[in-house]
Amino acid sequence: MANKISVGILGATGIVGQRFVQMLEDHPWFEVAWLAASDRSEGRLYGEAARWKLKTAIPARVAQMRISPAKPQGAPKLIFAALDASIAAEMEPLFAEAGCAVITNSSALRMQKDVPLVIPEVNPDHIKLLECQSWRKKSGGFVVTNPNCSAIGLVLALSPLQKLFGIETVMAVTMQAISGAGYPGVASMDILGNVIPYIGKEEEKMEEETRKLLGELNGAGIVSADFAMSAQCNRVAVEDGHTESISIKLRKKAQPQEIIDAWNGFRSVPQELKLPSAPAEPVRYLAMPDRPQPRFDVESGKGMTTTVGRLRPCGVLDWKFTVLSHNTIRGAAGAALLNAELLKAQGYLD
Amino acid sequence: MANKISVGILGATGIVGQRFVQMLEDHPWFEVAWLAASDRSEGRLYGEAARWKLKTAIPARVAQMRISPAKPQGAPKLIFAALDASIAAEMEPLFAEAGCAVITNSSALRMQKDVPLVIPEVNPDHIKLLECQSWRKKSGGFVVTNPNCSAIGLVLALSPLQKLFGIETVMAVTMQAISGAGYPGVASMDILGNVIPYIGKEEEKMEEETRKLLGELNGAGIVSADFAMSAQCNRVAVEDGHTESISIKLRKKAQPQEIIDAWNGFRSVPQELKLPSAPAEPVRYLAMPDRPQPRFDVESGKGMTTTVGRLRPCGVLDWKFTVLSHNTIRGAAGAALLNAELLKAQGYLD
Amino acid sequence: MANKISVGILGATGIVGQRFVQMLEDHPWFEVAWLAASDRSEGRLYGEAARWKLKTAIPARVAQMRISPAKPQGAPKLIFAALDASIAAEMEPLFAEAGCAVITNSSALRMQKDVPLVIPEVNPDHIKLLECQSWRKKSGGFVVTNPNCSAIGLVLALSPLQKLFGIETVMAVTMQAISGAGYPGVASMDILGNVIPYIGKEEEKMEEETRKLLGELNGAGIVSADFAMSAQCNRVAVEDGHTESISIKLRKKAQPQEIIDAWNGFRSVPQELKLPSAPAEPVRYLAMPDRPQPRFDVESGKGMTTTVGRLRPCGVLDWKFTVLSHNTIRGAAGAALLNAELLKAQGYLD
Amino acid sequence: MANKISVGILGATGIVGQRFVQMLEDHPWFEVAWLAASDRSEGRLYGEAARWKLKTAIPARVAQMRISPAKPQGAPKLIFAALDASIAAEMEPLFAEAGCAVITNSSALRMQKDVPLVIPEVNPDHIKLLECQSWRKKSGGFVVTNPNCSAIGLVLALSPLQKLFGIETVMAVTMQAISGAGYPGVASMDILGNVIPYIGKEEEKMEEETRKLLGELNGAGIVSADFAMSAQCNRVAVEDGHTESISIKLRKKAQPQEIIDAWNGFRSVPQELKLPSAPAEPVRYLAMPDRPQPRFDVESGKGMTTTVGRLRPCGVLDWKFTVLSHNTIRGAAGAALLNAELLKAQGYLD
Repeated sequence: MANKISVGILGATGIVGQRFVQMLEDHPWFEVAWLAASDRSEGRLYGEAARWKLKTAIPARVAQMRISPAKPQGAPKLIFAALDASIAAEMEPLFAEAGCAVITNSSALRMQKDVPLVIPEVNPDHIKLLECQSWRKKSGGFVVTNPNCSAIGLVLALSPLQKLFGIETVMAVTMQAISGAGYPGVASMDILGNVIPYIGKEEEKMEEETRKLLGELNGAGIVSADFAMSAQCNRVAVEDGHTESISIKLRKKAQPQEIIDAWNGFRSVPQELKLPSAPAEPVRYLAMPDRPQPRFDVESGKGMTTTVGRLRPCGVLDWKFTVLSHNTIRGAAGAALLNAELLKAQGYLD
Repeated sequence: MANKISVGILGATGIVGQRFVQMLEDHPWFEVAWLAASDRSEGRLYGEAARWKLKTAIPARVAQMRISPAKPQGAPKLIFAALDASIAAEMEPLFAEAGCAVITNSSALRMQKDVPLVIPEVNPDHIKLLECQSWRKKSGGFVVTNPNCSAIGLVLALSPLQKLFGIETVMAVTMQAISGAGYPGVASMDILGNVIPYIGKEEEKMEEETRKLLGELNGAGIVSADFAMSAQCNRVAVEDGHTESISIKLRKKAQPQEIIDAWNGFRSVPQELKLPSAPAEPVRYLAMPDRPQPRFDVESGKGMTTTVGRLRPCGVLDWKFTVLSHNTIRGAAGAALLNAELLKAQGYLD
Repeated sequence: MANKISVGILGATGIVGQRFVQMLEDHPWFEVAWLAASDRSEGRLYGEAARWKLKTAIPARVAQMRISPAKPQGAPKLIFAALDASIAAEMEPLFAEAGCAVITNSSALRMQKDVPLVIPEVNPDHIKLLECQSWRKKSGGFVVTNPNCSAIGLVLALSPLQKLFGIETVMAVTMQAISGAGYPGVASMDILGNVIPYIGKEEEKMEEETRKLLGELNGAGIVSADFAMSAQCNRVAVEDGHTESISIKLRKKAQPQEIIDAWNGFRSVPQELKLPSAPAEPVRYLAMPDRPQPRFDVESGKGMTTTVGRLRPCGVLDWKFTVLSHNTIRGAAGAALLNAELLKAQGYLD
Repeated sequence: MANKISVGILGATGIVGQRFVQMLEDHPWFEVAWLAASDRSEGRLYGEAARWKLKTAIPARVAQMRISPAKPQGAPKLIFAALDASIAAEMEPLFAEAGCAVITNSSALRMQKDVPLVIPEVNPDHIKLLECQSWRKKSGGFVVTNPNCSAIGLVLALSPLQKLFGIETVMAVTMQAISGAGYPGVASMDILGNVIPYIGKEEEKMEEETRKLLGELNGAGIVSADFAMSAQCNRVAVEDGHTESISIKLRKKAQPQEIIDAWNGFRSVPQELKLPSAPAEPVRYLAMPDRPQPRFDVESGKGMTTTVGRLRPCGVLDWKFTVLSHNTIRGAAGAALLNAELLKAQGYLD
């Protein structure tokens, strides 16, 4: 315990903040030492301020911690951030400026030129971009981001195909879980027995983040991948797990078994480094004709494995398939945590 | 009443059969005179044999009718059919052979060369194909079909665009209601809080029927429209209403307002003929950013109007938008009923 | 139209406020002339300020009305109120003081000694209590309340039994719809696939209101009925309709058919006066073994009929049965509207 | 492994059969050696015949086992049975007659005079009744049953109160999960957004089983407990977990804290014997005002702990509270497994 790195959580009371608390419980490298949330929670016990919405019990030690002011003074050097974008835009730079490593799930800075947007299996080398940040130069602090919950499962499925065959075109239609909207988030009167064909700014994020993630580091910036992409985002009455109907065009011909093998054989830096939160399989192809389904597959690899199914020819592009990814684990807290583990393994947290 | 045309319903106890009973109650032209279902229902009162699942009460007169053997003997000349495809494949030809006009919702004969697959607003001229049927020549009987519940809303939205701009490519991802699977249909354990990314044969039907519907009558057959199309079909926890995320490429450039005007201004034969079940607006565009939604819009035009929303540019094709259509009204019983009304108006039922 | 009574709606943008707008559209006696809501809605068009959540379209005329300050100045004399209890406690007296007839769905004043709590079929004579209100004496204004949405269906079912057999004991367990909590109300993450065995203050309201409603007017107050009562209130994933499992003990022996006849034969003042919103049957007994169900029965009598089913002996008390009532129609806006109609018919609005 | 007792599962492909397979995976004492199901599954691989509906993966070894004829020949001596009642009534006696220990979840024989109906924490002594069975005398075989899924949580909550204070009256209203009806079980069209106030024969089972379980062994039979009881059973849209609103009258006065202590302190034979499936706490009281809830609490004690909450005075009886119990673990497969462990510990399986 003495050797663990102290971490703080910004936005600790929300759904993603709770996932951070949950996933950091018994983490071999990190230990929650500091929690901050909105002003009205400040000074309260976490167990009282957070309306705990996860199925595992709130960790007893953390429940007894008192919520600190959301200011860099007194905060640990490693900060996980789960703030709303508008607050994150103000707050994250303050912490980075003060020398903190800010590992954030917020969308605020994701597309900023010198901010790495990283999935450790996909573009671990983009991490280096943080060296270009002015905060880094001044105080040693920096910001690293992970993608939107709708983009990450897709990108994990695309990445091994990009390497082998090249991606020319991507069409994505999502059916996203309610937990993606936080708590209280989606009103039950809006979603019970319903589909909402709109999630504010989600399609734009999904399209631009996918291309940045699959882009190339080029000096002080990322050259986004140049494939055509279109996303349509829907909300459905599912608790956890974003399901996506995908069509793609590849640059090179591929046989279906080659694609499946690419997915099932996909291993990358987190698996090589044996990062604690890295799933054995970042992507798993399910052969059954009606899978993946949130009910059965969302917890694959403790929520860190993206499941794929239904690979079949597409009448317009080359291939279509279904992707499922856990939106608050692989798509949020787990994504940030894996980023932090990568940073630690690469010496950025020393 | 004396002047109404007697009609029979094959498969009267299922969900679509019930919709026929419901929609024919107080119909100005037709009157239910005969009901048939599976062997185990034969001889029973309809009110006892049917597990009535609609929200309006079972019509009292029909509830007291006795279920007849599913044989042409004694059946009226006009038959609405709502049978499972495998049974329909055997039964519908028997009734047509015996001289009945069989207006069917089943998929069994939809793609048969000499069988019209018709949406009255879209391809009313395809009706003429029935003259090529051998049944017609022998006994006067014939079979007319309506499309799958996933195809009809899409085709209604595509039809006015096809006329004005031409269709080059269509990508469709559906989120389909449970009532589309009949009763008992989808087990609650399969769909509560879940998405099922698979509906057997649905994608194939949607792709080939869409092209046949938008094709051209050419002598004794239909030349299917030659655009590229790809469908992905999902089941969601919605009671009624198929929501679809669509992307299209047009042959001619179109401005968004031209597309919206094409939808809102779309009127066709059923509206001109003032067919009793024809909606005033076959298609209605909703300007709100988060519509259409099953909860609010599925009953538009008494379930006969297809609602469309969210028209916006597509990063891959030209345009994307959302379509919603009532799957057991416009997508099944109402579709067949409107076909029957068109046939009546054109003298085929005299 | 010229002869209609102008009415105002306090709290017009909430779910119950919307129901008032919906039910007053085309009302033969009343016409919406004034709308008020929270400060932030003031001055805006109703169609923009209200997030309309009902399935019928927002009435066009009302959508174009501008929201007034929530002050008696300029308000019509007849006010329907749908405010949160804490605001109602302040606001309703102001309007009554200013001479308005305040017909309110709020719980704020329901149990106040001189405020009538009325269901027109059950205790229409309690209306007279308003003559004891100091507001009435000063300005002619008064407040009349209707009960909680969980109490009204139960009391409608109990009332005919009380008259014939006397009530000795009542046990009620509710399964209440999400619309009872307003909008946004219950978070989807809290109720999807779940039961919440707690609704704040609901059990207390249900117990005390039931006894006041079935009590007797005695001079300047109500002597509550003296039967024992216990309520347990649960929230379930149903959109509209509170289902209740009830057990009762009667003072006199009753045969099951006598009880069913009492329910089906129940007619009262609103039916005699043919009040516009009065259902033909205030209570209807359903003989099928698995009814009433929200899915099929909540709209009975346009949402104003309480349905009852499953009457059978109780192993502890005498009888048990299931009650279903529409919580935002019979349990809120419709209840207040029927109260207003009773007041009008009795000359209180002249 | 060599030392484990071979067990068979009758009705292995259903939902409860699947739970047996799941719970027996890695069991320290028992090992699945034989599977039987309906005729149409006979001879097929379990992994193909069973439509696996649990969230953990189907155990690989069992998936490869072939389904045997449902006959005692070749079956192991220890049989877990999860058959429909009508089939169980025929089949279970055949296996007992042939010398098998039949540990069954079926209701078929539960109320038979010489058949023990047992919850190990509640009435472990009732096990002895099996010595009275004619099968036992002839072949050594016997049948032991566990209660209905709606009764077991209630009885676990009542048992410690009965011991300390005596039970005089029990009123129960259930809100039961869909998995209780097996697969396919409840149609989604029947339960999505709905409540069904009826479950066939459930109320009768709940009332009579509760009294048998809390009764006393008296020679060759059980004298059922003589308290008054009434149950009302409803189905709700919850996947796993029966929630129950309970009211009770005790024979002796009790303080609320005494009741809570009785629940939290409840330990019995399975805990003393450290049976492998025994939860540390058979009953746990939750102090939060809105718990227990299926979403959070159904997996307590790996689904073997009954959670209780909301203890408060009842206006009719003495106390009311909410009970939650996992219906396919504690209420079915886990109940039978714990019975088998008790039998093993007591030497009945030697």
